[in-house]
Amino acid sequence: MKGIFITFEGPEGSGKSTHTKLLCEYLREKGKDIVYAREPGSTAIGEKIRNILLDHENKELSEIAEMCLYMAARAQLVEEVILPALKEGKIIISDRFLDATIAYQGYAGGLDIGLIKILGKAVTLGIKPDLTIFLDNDVDKGLNQHGKIKDRIENKPLSYHKKVHFGYMQLANLEPERIRIISQDTEINKTQGKIRELVDKLLK
Amino acid sequence: MKGIFITFEGPEGSGKSTHTKLLCEYLREKGKDIVYAREPGSTAIGEKIRNILLDHENKELSEIAEMCLYMAARAQLVEEVILPALKEGKIIISDRFLDATIAYQGYAGGLDIGLIKILGKAVTLGIKPDLTIFLDNDVDKGLNQHGKIKDRIENKPLSYHKKVHFGYMQLANLEPERIRIISQDTEINKTQGKIRELVDKLLK
Repeated sequence: MKGIFITFEGPEGSGKSTHTKLLCEYLREKGKDIVYAREPGSTAIGEKIRNILLDHENKELSEIAEMCLYMAARAQLVEEVILPALKEGKIIISDRFLDATIAYQGYAGGLDIGLIKILGKAVTLGIKPDLTIFLDNDVDKGLNQHGKIKDRIENKPLSYHKKVHFGYMQLANLEPERIRIISQDTEINKTQGKIRELVDKLLK
Repeated sequence: MKGIFITFEGPEGSGKSTHTKLLCEYLREKGKDIVYAREPGSTAIGEKIRNILLDHENKELSEIAEMCLYMAARAQLVEEVILPALKEGKIIISDRFLDATIAYQGYAGGLDIGLIKILGKAVTLGIKPDLTIFLDNDVDKGLNQHGKIKDRIENKPLSYHKKVHFGYMQLANLEPERIRIISQDTEINKTQGKIRELVDKLLK
């Protein structure tokens, strides 16, 4: 694998989409070949699965069915997007990846984390991010600063989202070299500056 | 669990839908409380997943994504339909269940069968059929006797469907008490007669 794989993680409203976009712009200006992905989705099949996952109508979706759907979308993303891009030496920036399933459906949803890791390894073909940027924020504020209508996941109770945050912290403790916690500055540019510093170091 | 769980398995065109219907009619006439299910599907979310799985458009669906989608639909079926029906002492008759994923995505698709079994156990909450009727038939004839337009799975090559058949045979060898092979008679009534005999014995 010649490419580089960077993922963004974090609770709801932590600014992942803003910062992934800014990072992509920065790297493209430097002449880098960037592939951007967003989970679940970024493939035709993945987007269909995304519709099921985020649709309010599907209230009765069980925790393990939810986990299987995220994994199905991820399998498709790895096969169609991530693996080919890595082989071509590109930089892939993904808004969420396997860590999210461990934090959300595992730590918060109560599913067996061992099972998620076994299935996750098969689904990702063992591909791990070279760098994971965890955008830390106040869970409470993050959930409420969203002006838009909340999706099925965002609508889960605050206690769920606090467990998600705890899960991410556990993961960062286990792999401090890969998962870097970025505490958010009030100024977006300052937060983005910290991210670029980490990425520049990785690309050297 | 007070109820009874019966599944039908078999290659394409083996008459599962015909025989499940006839068996349901027979048992209803006897005054039994029957719940019928068909995989993938039989729940609102399961039907949405079914659309993705059987749609020709989704040619690029990877083997492991396919497996995860079947499991998601199954998880939903177990939680919403099978488990409640078993608790209420009903008889559940399902057209396919976990054995199908082992035969199709495992034996024919080449996925790790151990992984399918681990995930399958979690998804089914450990619920196993009391009786599985395997409707045996000639794979070649079964595929071609379908007058209708084939779905994405039916459209896979003959070699794939032969491996599915082989997989089912392996499963029947491992659990001969649960999985009963019914070789098809030219007369539907005679085949149905063999099925009713097995079911009557189970219900005694």
